[in-house]
Amino acid sequence: MAGAQTIPAKMTAVAISQPGGPMVLKPEKRDVPQPGPGEILIRVHAAGVNRPDLLQRKGAYPPPPGASDLPGLEVAGEVAALGEGAPRWRIGDQVCALTPGGGYAEYVTVHASNALALPAGFTLTEAAAMPETFFTVWHNVFERGGLKEGETLLVHGGSSGIGTTAIQLAKAFGARVIATAGSAEKCEACVKLGADSAVNYREQDFVRAVKDATDGRGANVILDMVGGDYVSRNYDAAAMEGRIVQIATMGGAMANADISKLMVKRLVHTGSTLRPRTVEFKGAVAAALEAQVWPLLATRRVAPVMDMIFPLKEAWRAHERLEEGEHVGKIVLDVG
Amino acid sequence: MAGAQTIPAKMTAVAISQPGGPMVLKPEKRDVPQPGPGEILIRVHAAGVNRPDLLQRKGAYPPPPGASDLPGLEVAGEVAALGEGAPRWRIGDQVCALTPGGGYAEYVTVHASNALALPAGFTLTEAAAMPETFFTVWHNVFERGGLKEGETLLVHGGSSGIGTTAIQLAKAFGARVIATAGSAEKCEACVKLGADSAVNYREQDFVRAVKDATDGRGANVILDMVGGDYVSRNYDAAAMEGRIVQIATMGGAMANADISKLMVKRLVHTGSTLRPRTVEFKGAVAAALEAQVWPLLATRRVAPVMDMIFPLKEAWRAHERLEEGEHVGKIVLDVG
Repeated sequence: MAGAQTIPAKMTAVAISQPGGPMVLKPEKRDVPQPGPGEILIRVHAAGVNRPDLLQRKGAYPPPPGASDLPGLEVAGEVAALGEGAPRWRIGDQVCALTPGGGYAEYVTVHASNALALPAGFTLTEAAAMPETFFTVWHNVFERGGLKEGETLLVHGGSSGIGTTAIQLAKAFGARVIATAGSAEKCEACVKLGADSAVNYREQDFVRAVKDATDGRGANVILDMVGGDYVSRNYDAAAMEGRIVQIATMGGAMANADISKLMVKRLVHTGSTLRPRTVEFKGAVAAALEAQVWPLLATRRVAPVMDMIFPLKEAWRAHERLEEGEHVGKIVLDVG
Repeated sequence: MAGAQTIPAKMTAVAISQPGGPMVLKPEKRDVPQPGPGEILIRVHAAGVNRPDLLQRKGAYPPPPGASDLPGLEVAGEVAALGEGAPRWRIGDQVCALTPGGGYAEYVTVHASNALALPAGFTLTEAAAMPETFFTVWHNVFERGGLKEGETLLVHGGSSGIGTTAIQLAKAFGARVIATAGSAEKCEACVKLGADSAVNYREQDFVRAVKDATDGRGANVILDMVGGDYVSRNYDAAAMEGRIVQIATMGGAMANADISKLMVKRLVHTGSTLRPRTVEFKGAVAAALEAQVWPLLATRRVAPVMDMIFPLKEAWRAHERLEEGEHVGKIVLDVG
């Protein structure tokens, strides 16, 4: 392990002391992990906070086999050590990365292919806010949903981390975007980011709004993290041959829907989760992002929307903020 | 209209005298239709009977705009006249064709591209039993469902016209096939046609049977015409990245299902209906069938399964037979 001599044996991490509310997140001393073959060790500058972290904290989303028990699915920092056969990076390179867990810590190991170069002009704190949403949106909206130039994307939760990224990327690739959000302020934020229109779902029926905005045709791709009674409404809001991509079920996993609409409109209802995918899959998405999305970052036409930054040791405050749902964009932990 | 001189002005057809049971099907004299640009007139030898005909008879499935009000979605016969710009066929050619309606008659017009040459060694009566199921299975199982060699197909309604065609085509293209059917006799028919196993759904849970037959992995493609409570069970029976293709909802259009399974297993739930598609789409499927499936017919490795043949004027008996559900394979009308 080259460069290992400069790395301490112990580090500060935030662990889930027991399943429960935000206060179960507690700073601990842990051994600094060692990078295995093909992996790199990152000295973490900042770590992104994501909704799956909340589920993991509550005990509802156990880490996959072999992953760290510490929460944290994305980080940015410096490469501090290289495992065997991780030739791409050098010690000191600044990167952001999707992690299989363990991001709420001063050091984390990731597969070399799951890290991306820090985009020029961005801080490490901003970069820590990017992997989860960029990987998720790229795969689900473009690869799985096949969004094309000139098509219409309906993004639910438009002011969330995922939503703000989806709005920007869809606009950058020439799609029309309709976003839903839960307040006038959040709708305004969506429009500022480029959404062609935004629907306050507390006041307006999104199906009607989508139909009105598309001359009755509907949305070609729908990115949904709500599920529940949205499923049936998504079938109504979708265009002929529309693709509905499910990335969470915050409104409930059980859905009652008229599946004759799937046939008559020739819809595709699909979905995915990111964390259990192989390092090879994540590496392929990382390569696609570097080739197709990183160039867009140069002009800051696409950039992460930063909500608030909390110190690592106060991760519980970050979780409270995310649970309250008042955020717009991403919540990040400053690790130092 | 070349050759028109040999064609009578009037023909016998079976019409839907009013919405209702099988007895509303009544022979009538009708004008022989004239082929428009790009169309051919077929002197019908035999016409296939399909489930959508039953719905149309009940008044639940009105013909699309511009289509004949007569039932009948597939025929085989001789080319009797050519419209302008239908150069592929000659008077006297023997063909089978998907029709937009009007098949229960002595003459019917179809777009030239929606007809296929009578396969060598087959009778016109057999050929009349092929278009609906071959177009439906090809598009839904192979094009939409993407079934590949070595994958497992679960076919519900294995002894139906669609089911018997799906079993044979999937086996011919190297897939493993599990069929469901409602009696021991029907299960035996499925196995005789090549299904690797058949599940009597009245006695056995098909989810369990599919898991047992695939070492727990599940089916890669599921062809379903049941819907209702099968939707949730299909999600359970599907393999990771499985594709569930809905072609009817005989068990009910409303489905209650856990859509987190769509995400976790990265399923695709889609479907389609054939009748409203454009002539161009149907022409493209016809071309694919001629290129990829017609060669398989030469050895009769794939052949339509014939249930019973009724005279055109007794179409009501054919409908009764289909509604009773005791058939295996296709029911055909002999037009003469």
